[in-house]
Amino acid sequence: MSKDVAAAFLRARRPEQKQQRYAAILDAARELAARDGVGAVSLAGIAAQVGMHKSALLKYFETREEIFLRLAETEWREWAAGATGALAAAGPAPRDVADALTRSVAERPLFCQLLLHSPLTLERNVSIEVVRAFKQVIHDVLAEVRGALQKALPALAPDACTDLLVMSGLAAAGLWQAAHPPPQVAAVYAERGGAECPDFTESLGRFVRVHLTGLLHESGVPDSGPRFCG
Amino acid sequence: MSKDVAAAFLRARRPEQKQQRYAAILDAARELAARDGVGAVSLAGIAAQVGMHKSALLKYFETREEIFLRLAETEWREWAAGATGALAAAGPAPRDVADALTRSVAERPLFCQLLLHSPLTLERNVSIEVVRAFKQVIHDVLAEVRGALQKALPALAPDACTDLLVMSGLAAAGLWQAAHPPPQVAAVYAERGGAECPDFTESLGRFVRVHLTGLLHESGVPDSGPRFCG
Repeated sequence: MSKDVAAAFLRARRPEQKQQRYAAILDAARELAARDGVGAVSLAGIAAQVGMHKSALLKYFETREEIFLRLAETEWREWAAGATGALAAAGPAPRDVADALTRSVAERPLFCQLLLHSPLTLERNVSIEVVRAFKQVIHDVLAEVRGALQKALPALAPDACTDLLVMSGLAAAGLWQAAHPPPQVAAVYAERGGAECPDFTESLGRFVRVHLTGLLHESGVPDSGPRFCG
Repeated sequence: MSKDVAAAFLRARRPEQKQQRYAAILDAARELAARDGVGAVSLAGIAAQVGMHKSALLKYFETREEIFLRLAETEWREWAAGATGALAAAGPAPRDVADALTRSVAERPLFCQLLLHSPLTLERNVSIEVVRAFKQVIHDVLAEVRGALQKALPALAPDACTDLLVMSGLAAAGLWQAAHPPPQVAAVYAERGGAECPDFTESLGRFVRVHLTGLLHESGVPDSGPRFCG
């Protein structure tokens, strides 16, 4: 931004100016995370990107981790909007539903990264108030997407819908990590022929399809173990 | 240890003495990880526990992360021994096989922790030689357990055996994390009734059963989507 605009920005006093700063900090964190990965973005880096002092930035957010948890809230909400739309438009076969769910996750790389980092580091360096707000967002979002999933696939029991969403989230976090190895791991994979490094979207798609198949079969016979066709 | 023994230990020159030191460092790291969690154990903490200077310890291991990756190699091998035994002894139903696999993982808390930490942090701060050795151990162990799994459940295709092991490992890593939340997250779960914090063994057991059911059904019809009994 220009020097004059930057000066006005730094003098921000009115509520709407404060709101602008708040949003600018989140935008800077999002931009850096997209470029360098969430784990590599520091508070100092975000402050430099948005042109503020670290101490000024900490009037808006408790910690670096709060900034990313607030981004995660937005990502969860935007994922919910995408997923409910995709599920409403999906064909009636379980495979169509599974693929719609997979695409809704795979098209959001920052969401995938934050699925991994939220429980591991982000929730560990914020106040209980921030955790409470974050967990409420996840709760509401899961309820919304669960409703859309049940509507798309009435044969899937409500508990099984929750299971599919939660386990797909864990799988996405782990597969994202596996599909984006650090340089020395990528080098070893290359030496070994490359087959050990999964393609994220393909692996997640396979996971969601298989797990949904399992849930549809298991929910028919809750206490007697899986039943087979043959 | 006594002062005399400690002094002898510090003067270690012969190969068997060096081997003793190497093992003592690993034991100290294992003990601290069991008490405090892998993420909370520092190189300085390990050095203090084993009674060595940090600089002396770094003659045995490149980094803190190498110490934990070497522990992870041992954990993978010991898991393989336990899992192959449990699979050989399991009943013939898919549910028996799934439960044997679940127990083999759930009875090894350090293994579960290291499943989470290996890709996320440990593999990022070691040389390519250490990564190469670690990946070879995982490759060999997976081949061994895959063989036992196929023998226990001949209906499961070889690729599906690999899928079950890999995805169960990712699920175990994520569920371990979810089942052991930091204090402020545990407090929010308690406010919300406690149902959001999963029981590790039960959740992993359900995951492995459902995913195995899905794989058994999917492998029968690879290209036409899931088939249903009704």
